[in-house]
Amino acid sequence: MVRAGSARVAAGPTLAVVAREAGVSVPTASKVVNGREDVAPETRRRVTEALDRLGYVRRPRFEAAKTPGLVDLVVPSLESSRSGAVLRGVEAAAYEAGLEVVVSAGPTRTRGGRPECDRLDKLTARGSSGVLVNLAELSASQYAWLDHHPIPYVLIDPAHEPPAGVVSVGAANRQGGVSATEHLLGLGHERIAVIAGHRRTMCSGARVAGYRSALASAGVRHRAEYVRQAGCDETTARLRMRELLDLPEPPTAVFVCSDRMALGVYAALAERELRVPDDMSVVGFDDLPEARWGAPALTTVRQPLAEMAATALRLLVRRMHGERPEGTRTELSTRLVHRASTAVPPALRPTA
Amino acid sequence: MVRAGSARVAAGPTLAVVAREAGVSVPTASKVVNGREDVAPETRRRVTEALDRLGYVRRPRFEAAKTPGLVDLVVPSLESSRSGAVLRGVEAAAYEAGLEVVVSAGPTRTRGGRPECDRLDKLTARGSSGVLVNLAELSASQYAWLDHHPIPYVLIDPAHEPPAGVVSVGAANRQGGVSATEHLLGLGHERIAVIAGHRRTMCSGARVAGYRSALASAGVRHRAEYVRQAGCDETTARLRMRELLDLPEPPTAVFVCSDRMALGVYAALAERELRVPDDMSVVGFDDLPEARWGAPALTTVRQPLAEMAATALRLLVRRMHGERPEGTRTELSTRLVHRASTAVPPALRPTA
Repeated sequence: MVRAGSARVAAGPTLAVVAREAGVSVPTASKVVNGREDVAPETRRRVTEALDRLGYVRRPRFEAAKTPGLVDLVVPSLESSRSGAVLRGVEAAAYEAGLEVVVSAGPTRTRGGRPECDRLDKLTARGSSGVLVNLAELSASQYAWLDHHPIPYVLIDPAHEPPAGVVSVGAANRQGGVSATEHLLGLGHERIAVIAGHRRTMCSGARVAGYRSALASAGVRHRAEYVRQAGCDETTARLRMRELLDLPEPPTAVFVCSDRMALGVYAALAERELRVPDDMSVVGFDDLPEARWGAPALTTVRQPLAEMAATALRLLVRRMHGERPEGTRTELSTRLVHRASTAVPPALRPTA
Repeated sequence: MVRAGSARVAAGPTLAVVAREAGVSVPTASKVVNGREDVAPETRRRVTEALDRLGYVRRPRFEAAKTPGLVDLVVPSLESSRSGAVLRGVEAAAYEAGLEVVVSAGPTRTRGGRPECDRLDKLTARGSSGVLVNLAELSASQYAWLDHHPIPYVLIDPAHEPPAGVVSVGAANRQGGVSATEHLLGLGHERIAVIAGHRRTMCSGARVAGYRSALASAGVRHRAEYVRQAGCDETTARLRMRELLDLPEPPTAVFVCSDRMALGVYAALAERELRVPDDMSVVGFDDLPEARWGAPALTTVRQPLAEMAATALRLLVRRMHGERPEGTRTELSTRLVHRASTAVPPALRPTA
């Protein structure tokens, strides 16, 4: 299924198609479309014919430099340092593109009975040039709204697989799960547990898949009791860690699918007077500023949120120019940031 | 000195002056100005005469509900969770007022040669309804710019005393310094040090003044060597804490003027293998989300950043309506959040 939103962008050939048809480069085709003089007459003729033949519609030019356009960033809430990183990336890339950013929190969380699409209605009324949506979950009515309105949009790190044709940017979550697990395997751990976020989310699923894959590659037996599902929050992560500690054979290391959940894990370990990393190695995911504050500072998988957001802005600008994206999902690499919460497992440590 | 910016707002009488002149309440004067029917004829006559006599100019009405206006928030950077809190407060209050928020980082930090006022020029070109400025420091050219343009503005937590007449919102920093110090005195500490932020900033000065005042009220001797100046960052705070520990008689407690600096203090204590709070009590200031992550979780003075920002937005809306503010500086209370980084000093502790 291709949704109306992307079908609209895809309607009519792109400049790349025109260039291919005319046998010229995209910059050359662009020069012709934009009335530049520095094109050989024969080349101009070929491009003009290709434009006519393919029915190319020149889109209104987006005069970024003169009157800055406004793009919208819709985030679920502004409570977390996650949103801060997303906004930072969007703002910096928008500045480079000569755009300004309007920020709205919501509409997934209703506040004072705020209806679901009223934010979206406002931005249409104002004439937004494009929307970056950083909501974990879009409702059917929100997708319907986006399809119905002629505003280009790009999703930042959606929690669920978006409908076909919707452009989104995310992190290489699976690769992050592999890095975290390989780091622990490299230290000598074999009893490695994972505390996952919401079951249904793409990112959590991919992180756990990376964990399983790394275990399998290393020939380490997968134990179902070592995979625990929490709710992306501190409290449920704490409960899951307690359960892991109560197993007949508890793990020596745990990969926690978010830094926020790692705080709950630290709390569960402190309750039992277990030390990190001496008694238990912990790896988080995200690398929020808070991770550095952990005691010990948290080893975590860095998710490049600001870069993801900046990439989404640049993709949005291309859509605003009427370009068709090369792919619908762009993933940015994650990398392990080694701090102080991981060590060789107790059994392998030389006794003092 | 009254700057042009505020003189402009003050130019022509406010509705409050008209009401006083007519001997009616402000809401009654407002009803007459807005053509409402529910005003006694004699009252209407008195108000109309006062309006004429004083040369009241009705300002264009600000139709919040129909086409949402845009207000601007200018922050120094989006790196910190401080900006997150400020944005959250502004966004929520703007939503209540039917406004939307454009966020810009800068212009105090130049990025890629970004000139100092180009952000401000952009927002004039776009027709911003008002500006909230959350920059630590405004340059003379930025103040001159703001004075020159007919856009109302309010400062959020300026680091330096703004020129007379400029409206700003801040925290009750002095009261926060008193609370932090009284908390430590209450636990039995007498050797209490303070690590201040930048010397020239209002907030740091007020926090240290609160510290001195609390010591004086308790009859505890003030020691010059216990007052150390850091640079608002982690690194210099760490150096200052080392210096305090090297004193012939080191303190048993330290009040650190920001949570971020407290992280440096924790690091300096960890280097010497000193435990918080057993060997040293630590109180921070701000209550950023990171404070909860500290090990132990940081006792700190909560600065209501989101509430300060929301208050600034409401004051801005009043200025956009042409109202004159009651005062130029609004301060919101701070309060001590007792967590785990403070305890009775070692000498007073019962031996196990």
